[in-house]
Amino acid sequence: MQGHAYIDGNFVALEDAKISIFDWGFLHSDATYDVAHVWRGRFFRLDDHLDRFEANLGALRLNPGLSRAQMREVMHECVRRAGLDDAYVEVLCTRGRPAPGSRDPRTCVNNFMAFAIPFVWIADPDKQRRGVDLVVGTPQRIPPASVDPRIKNYHWMDFVMGLFEAYDRGGETVVLTDGAGHITEGPGFNVFAVHAGRSPGAPARLVTPAAGVLEGISRRTLIELAQTAGLGVEQRLLPVDELRRADEIFVSSTGGGLIPIATLDGVAVGGRQAGDFGPVSALLQQRYWDLHDDPQYAQPVRG
Amino acid sequence: MQGHAYIDGNFVALEDAKISIFDWGFLHSDATYDVAHVWRGRFFRLDDHLDRFEANLGALRLNPGLSRAQMREVMHECVRRAGLDDAYVEVLCTRGRPAPGSRDPRTCVNNFMAFAIPFVWIADPDKQRRGVDLVVGTPQRIPPASVDPRIKNYHWMDFVMGLFEAYDRGGETVVLTDGAGHITEGPGFNVFAVHAGRSPGAPARLVTPAAGVLEGISRRTLIELAQTAGLGVEQRLLPVDELRRADEIFVSSTGGGLIPIATLDGVAVGGRQAGDFGPVSALLQQRYWDLHDDPQYAQPVRG
Repeated sequence: MQGHAYIDGNFVALEDAKISIFDWGFLHSDATYDVAHVWRGRFFRLDDHLDRFEANLGALRLNPGLSRAQMREVMHECVRRAGLDDAYVEVLCTRGRPAPGSRDPRTCVNNFMAFAIPFVWIADPDKQRRGVDLVVGTPQRIPPASVDPRIKNYHWMDFVMGLFEAYDRGGETVVLTDGAGHITEGPGFNVFAVHAGRSPGAPARLVTPAAGVLEGISRRTLIELAQTAGLGVEQRLLPVDELRRADEIFVSSTGGGLIPIATLDGVAVGGRQAGDFGPVSALLQQRYWDLHDDPQYAQPVRG
Repeated sequence: MQGHAYIDGNFVALEDAKISIFDWGFLHSDATYDVAHVWRGRFFRLDDHLDRFEANLGALRLNPGLSRAQMREVMHECVRRAGLDDAYVEVLCTRGRPAPGSRDPRTCVNNFMAFAIPFVWIADPDKQRRGVDLVVGTPQRIPPASVDPRIKNYHWMDFVMGLFEAYDRGGETVVLTDGAGHITEGPGFNVFAVHAGRSPGAPARLVTPAAGVLEGISRRTLIELAQTAGLGVEQRLLPVDELRRADEIFVSSTGGGLIPIATLDGVAVGGRQAGDFGPVSALLQQRYWDLHDDPQYAQPVRG
């Protein structure tokens, strides 16, 4: 696979990007990360990702040992060395290894790493044209009282078991609930329900969960685009039953922006024909990609 | 550090025991593990650990690619090569890497690994004589509806944040609740409350949580030893308030067997003097270590 990584202070080929199995980032999933994307040679909202990453490092008492400017430079350099025009660029920081014989995380030297790989799609463009088959999975999303989902983390066993369930049931990906009948998020994406205007000509309304989810940068982008377009946006509890009644459903992710959902638990969303995802999804998807030409959001990878 | 590891089909030095950062075992904490210990040249209840490990592999749809006999042989060989008399021996299996560009765990080749390192104590013998200062932490233990705690896993962010809280509050380790006022478990250990008999001469009773916890092998060993000694054992919900009223508290772990708790949230357990943990803890700790000479439980490391 094309790409390049940064680990232990060195730029390395992807096959040399390895960590000790004794790093708590592995043995205790004690780490945080963020993922920005590069599209046609430009980073999209890179500093918004770094804002979140730095806040999350602080919340977990992790010290990457690099300044913000140095982390940004490493990300640029990974993409440059990888020679990628469209890339998925991850920064992460693990707890590291405690002193021999110790179980005290305060004795660890934290490890900052980064890598750039070819753009990873939640659903590739061809699949997006057909729409994704989404399943409401049985596992409960790990609750905020246990692990704060706003701190981007690798605790994904609930998602992985949900994915297997989705495949077993003929679906392609999964969304989990909070165990009390409300939608949370899926593996790497936020969820939006779209309700058509209550009367002809009235603006559509978007609903997306407000709690128990990562506050995604793509989610934020789509909320801002919807508001600019004059649509209603409600960030609140989203009951599963309300999602089933939505006229349109889409998910948002750095791995593809706005991805339309074709079916929910095997039922066509909004009673629509295959390949028709509705006007709101089409509008916001177009505007999402248009934003990638706006210098306020997109900065060239340094040559 | 003394020790030896097995990874990618080879026995390697500990410093060469590394995994790709692209393995889902790291990126999604998608893995299970088990830990047996060797004491004075003998494995303790090794096949009970392998029973649990194999059950957990099946539950997560992981295939280690080795038979039970081969896994057992790898564990023996790691200890033999490490030259350790007292060792902590971990087997683990990660999901591996999906096909390039894919997010489908069914495309992964799973990775089996193992390592032997010097015996890791939850609290070393000197510390055990003084007793451990335990804190009831604020994070809720990740609930069984999200990640089954009986499947030994690396989802420890709740524990890690709880550990930091314990240190901030002057404690040494942490136990988490289920968010509804019941004790669950701590980082790598189960918890027992001991209540003295209700009348003089009546047997003491042990209470340990029945749900939301790993069903530890040390926990099982101590339950069996208590029953053999004629003590009552109750596996049920354990309210935090009941733990505060206990006459004795101890925790159980492969990392030390029975470890006495001196204080709970800064209060001396059972109103006892420092260094006195009560007769039940003393009796069971003695019997736990005596069992390491019983050939039914302890098998020599193959030379």
